[in-house]
Amino acid sequence: MTKAYQQLEARFRRMNVLSDVSGMLHWDMAAIMPNGGAEARSEQLATLSVLNNELINAPDMGDLLAAAEDEDLDRWQKANLAEMKREWVHGTSVPADLVEKMSRAETGCEVAWRTARAENDFKGLLPKLQEVLDLSIEAGKAKAEALGTSVYDALLDQYDPMMRSERIDSLFAELEAFLPDFTADVIERQKAEEKPISPTGPFPIETQNKVGLDLMKAVGFDFDHGRLDISHHPFCGGIPDDVRITTRYDVNDFTSAIMGVLHETGHAMYERGLPKDWRNQPVGKARGMTMHESQSLLVEMQACRSEEFLTYAGPVFKQAFGGDDASWSASNLHRLYTRVEPGLIRVDADEVTYPAHVILRYRLERALIEGDMKLADLPGAWNDLMQKLLGITPPDDRDGCLQDIHWPSGAWGYFPTYTLGAMAAAQIFAAAKKANPEIPEALARGAFGPLMQWLEQNIHSQASSRSTDEILKEATGSALGVDAFKAHMISRYGA
Amino acid sequence: MTKAYQQLEARFRRMNVLSDVSGMLHWDMAAIMPNGGAEARSEQLATLSVLNNELINAPDMGDLLAAAEDEDLDRWQKANLAEMKREWVHGTSVPADLVEKMSRAETGCEVAWRTARAENDFKGLLPKLQEVLDLSIEAGKAKAEALGTSVYDALLDQYDPMMRSERIDSLFAELEAFLPDFTADVIERQKAEEKPISPTGPFPIETQNKVGLDLMKAVGFDFDHGRLDISHHPFCGGIPDDVRITTRYDVNDFTSAIMGVLHETGHAMYERGLPKDWRNQPVGKARGMTMHESQSLLVEMQACRSEEFLTYAGPVFKQAFGGDDASWSASNLHRLYTRVEPGLIRVDADEVTYPAHVILRYRLERALIEGDMKLADLPGAWNDLMQKLLGITPPDDRDGCLQDIHWPSGAWGYFPTYTLGAMAAAQIFAAAKKANPEIPEALARGAFGPLMQWLEQNIHSQASSRSTDEILKEATGSALGVDAFKAHMISRYGA
Repeated sequence: MTKAYQQLEARFRRMNVLSDVSGMLHWDMAAIMPNGGAEARSEQLATLSVLNNELINAPDMGDLLAAAEDEDLDRWQKANLAEMKREWVHGTSVPADLVEKMSRAETGCEVAWRTARAENDFKGLLPKLQEVLDLSIEAGKAKAEALGTSVYDALLDQYDPMMRSERIDSLFAELEAFLPDFTADVIERQKAEEKPISPTGPFPIETQNKVGLDLMKAVGFDFDHGRLDISHHPFCGGIPDDVRITTRYDVNDFTSAIMGVLHETGHAMYERGLPKDWRNQPVGKARGMTMHESQSLLVEMQACRSEEFLTYAGPVFKQAFGGDDASWSASNLHRLYTRVEPGLIRVDADEVTYPAHVILRYRLERALIEGDMKLADLPGAWNDLMQKLLGITPPDDRDGCLQDIHWPSGAWGYFPTYTLGAMAAAQIFAAAKKANPEIPEALARGAFGPLMQWLEQNIHSQASSRSTDEILKEATGSALGVDAFKAHMISRYGA
Repeated sequence: MTKAYQQLEARFRRMNVLSDVSGMLHWDMAAIMPNGGAEARSEQLATLSVLNNELINAPDMGDLLAAAEDEDLDRWQKANLAEMKREWVHGTSVPADLVEKMSRAETGCEVAWRTARAENDFKGLLPKLQEVLDLSIEAGKAKAEALGTSVYDALLDQYDPMMRSERIDSLFAELEAFLPDFTADVIERQKAEEKPISPTGPFPIETQNKVGLDLMKAVGFDFDHGRLDISHHPFCGGIPDDVRITTRYDVNDFTSAIMGVLHETGHAMYERGLPKDWRNQPVGKARGMTMHESQSLLVEMQACRSEEFLTYAGPVFKQAFGGDDASWSASNLHRLYTRVEPGLIRVDADEVTYPAHVILRYRLERALIEGDMKLADLPGAWNDLMQKLLGITPPDDRDGCLQDIHWPSGAWGYFPTYTLGAMAAAQIFAAAKKANPEIPEALARGAFGPLMQWLEQNIHSQASSRSTDEILKEATGSALGVDAFKAHMISRYGA
């Protein structure tokens, strides 16, 4: 008998479909909505949030979840039930009016951020951002009580289930013990080496777009189930059967758009590889943002910045953009794409300095959430910490604390998953190459099949049926750690 | 006291927001969704339909509606309550499982139609189209019982509240008494006249798009509250604060895209002119499809095919597309755009032969709904009636009975509103020019302000606060009739 469980499946299916609808509307808002549509969109998203909140708060939901425990369930159904409970704890701990207020505040702040960033106007954004922060803390407190965690950990748990800041502190400490000296050495060494030649533009946007589409196809993106568009902040949205990725173009620099496309394609492949039989059930979703980011960084950083892949990409770029032969050689491109240099913008950072960007945000958002810092002091604190961690200071907030969409859209506790994901990516790529040594050689032909097949089988298809650590243990032999990331760094950048 | 009424406003707001969400998803599906997203989209739209059906079927809704009757309401609130009742009667008469089945069948059939039309495959579409028809009849029967009408009138009432086929029969009979001889005369006369010169292409799609955007701006379209995109079947979707219109381009013929854009802009201006205070309430919506179509045809047929407007448009076209001076003169363009010639495609038809396209569809869909004809016999019946009414026979179903999206998407009872709208457009434009004789001269300068101001005040802002006939009586002095349309025909095409 699985009577209660079946009722739960029907209910969670409905909630998930409504979340999918919100996902499509979010994509539309970020990619193509005219600004004047913001107020109505805000109301739409709030209504959907409130409906989902009502559904998860149905008075008999607790009883159904308890009754399903005693029913005869297989492994996936049991895992699904566990995920339902997780969503229930998150969903019932926050009162409906707070959910609605948050949804409206976040949509409004996200739209205002677009203008504020363009106009370098942190003060103008401050009231809206303060409201989003205050509401997030209020929700975090409610969730912390239900989960038995700190407020920050409760927010983090939304993006990376079961991850806690204590573990992050220890993983990041290992990184901080390794990276500063390593980074300085790499920079020193690269100074002595032959300088890479930058291919010279302009790189017409249409050509960049075509190259992006071609590379997406090479990775395995199915255009019958997705699109590539433009947005202020590149992201992967939509739903598994209709993945919408976006990028942004700079006519003087094709790297940012192309690597952005490859990054988002990694996310998209994960979504597409989720098990079709479990669509619209909690267990069928991606495991969390650490795992998600591991898939984008695996494609972008591990695979596409390897000398093997660049052997393939060089001629593709050369044919598209023309110009000097030497600049398109695999060895030059590799030097270019592994160039280490502290910069202001996280999404443009090389993989060696990237963790510093994340550690900066992690420290600042913890201080804000835990009440150790005022939001009005963020620009100054950002610039100080940037100087300390990366040795540079932003000339303005546009390229400082206003550069990311995350905080304005209410995603506090999200940033650490970027670097946790980078660690997981190194661990997973090493395991994949060990399991199938032909992967690098295939990448040199632009063939992602062997890599994607292994990922689909060992990572994507696992969805949320196991924890991040369990999936990593089964796929790579050990839980999430720093070793593979360090080994990758040393192998690519020298000891 | 307006306690019950206020509760109703909150409930209908929620339902309306969910309908808006469906509207956005429908637009996305038609304009940009990859085909592989269809199954998930179908589930999303079905879920939203079922939710709205549950909300309108709330057990205490009837009591609330009755209680609100006794409350102290102003004119707009009273009209809103009447519209709530109308939606309630429609919404409660159809069982939830039928609503879900319809939504799924319609989404599936609409997607299948895209392929079927491209491949000229009526037989391939037949099973899905039969399902959509059967379900529409089932819903129509349930609504007919609740409304006390015939099945066809119940379906018609969804698109044009209070319109009945008896009235259509009489209005169309008047047209049919006038049009055939008139059309033959016009064609005969035009044969004797100087032939218009067709501007020669190619007309690059990007240039067409730019001209379309410029003309939309001239009409008054606010791009902060809307977009122009491409779809298989041009339409106006989205919501009043974010109107999404679409067109399709033919590199060898710019007329179809440009006139399509102007047509949809007319729809969009109506949506934009609806009273902001009544957003998301039944009374704040457009009055129905006859009124909606009157606004698109007023812009496209009455205003933009006038010699005055073409005086303005000629130089705009010439500058965009280049080419021969003579072909861009106002008099040549006017001859071109008032050229009468029976053709296969409704959306490309001139305004003299257009009613025949509608009468054809009206007769066929009534026969299908009333069980007088089998769906499998549609292609033959279509071709026979086309020959009888327009003297031509489609070479295939692609340009015959497969040309429109309406039936595949479940919109039975919709077609008559096109010609009722054309009649209303003539009536309204005549009244507007009488009220402000400067309108034609303004159009000759590309200035739509005076016309739009009058429309906004007399038509758009009325929303659903009065019936179509009441709005027309107040704005034009008489209820919907054929006289103004005939007078317009005679004035433009000669007696």
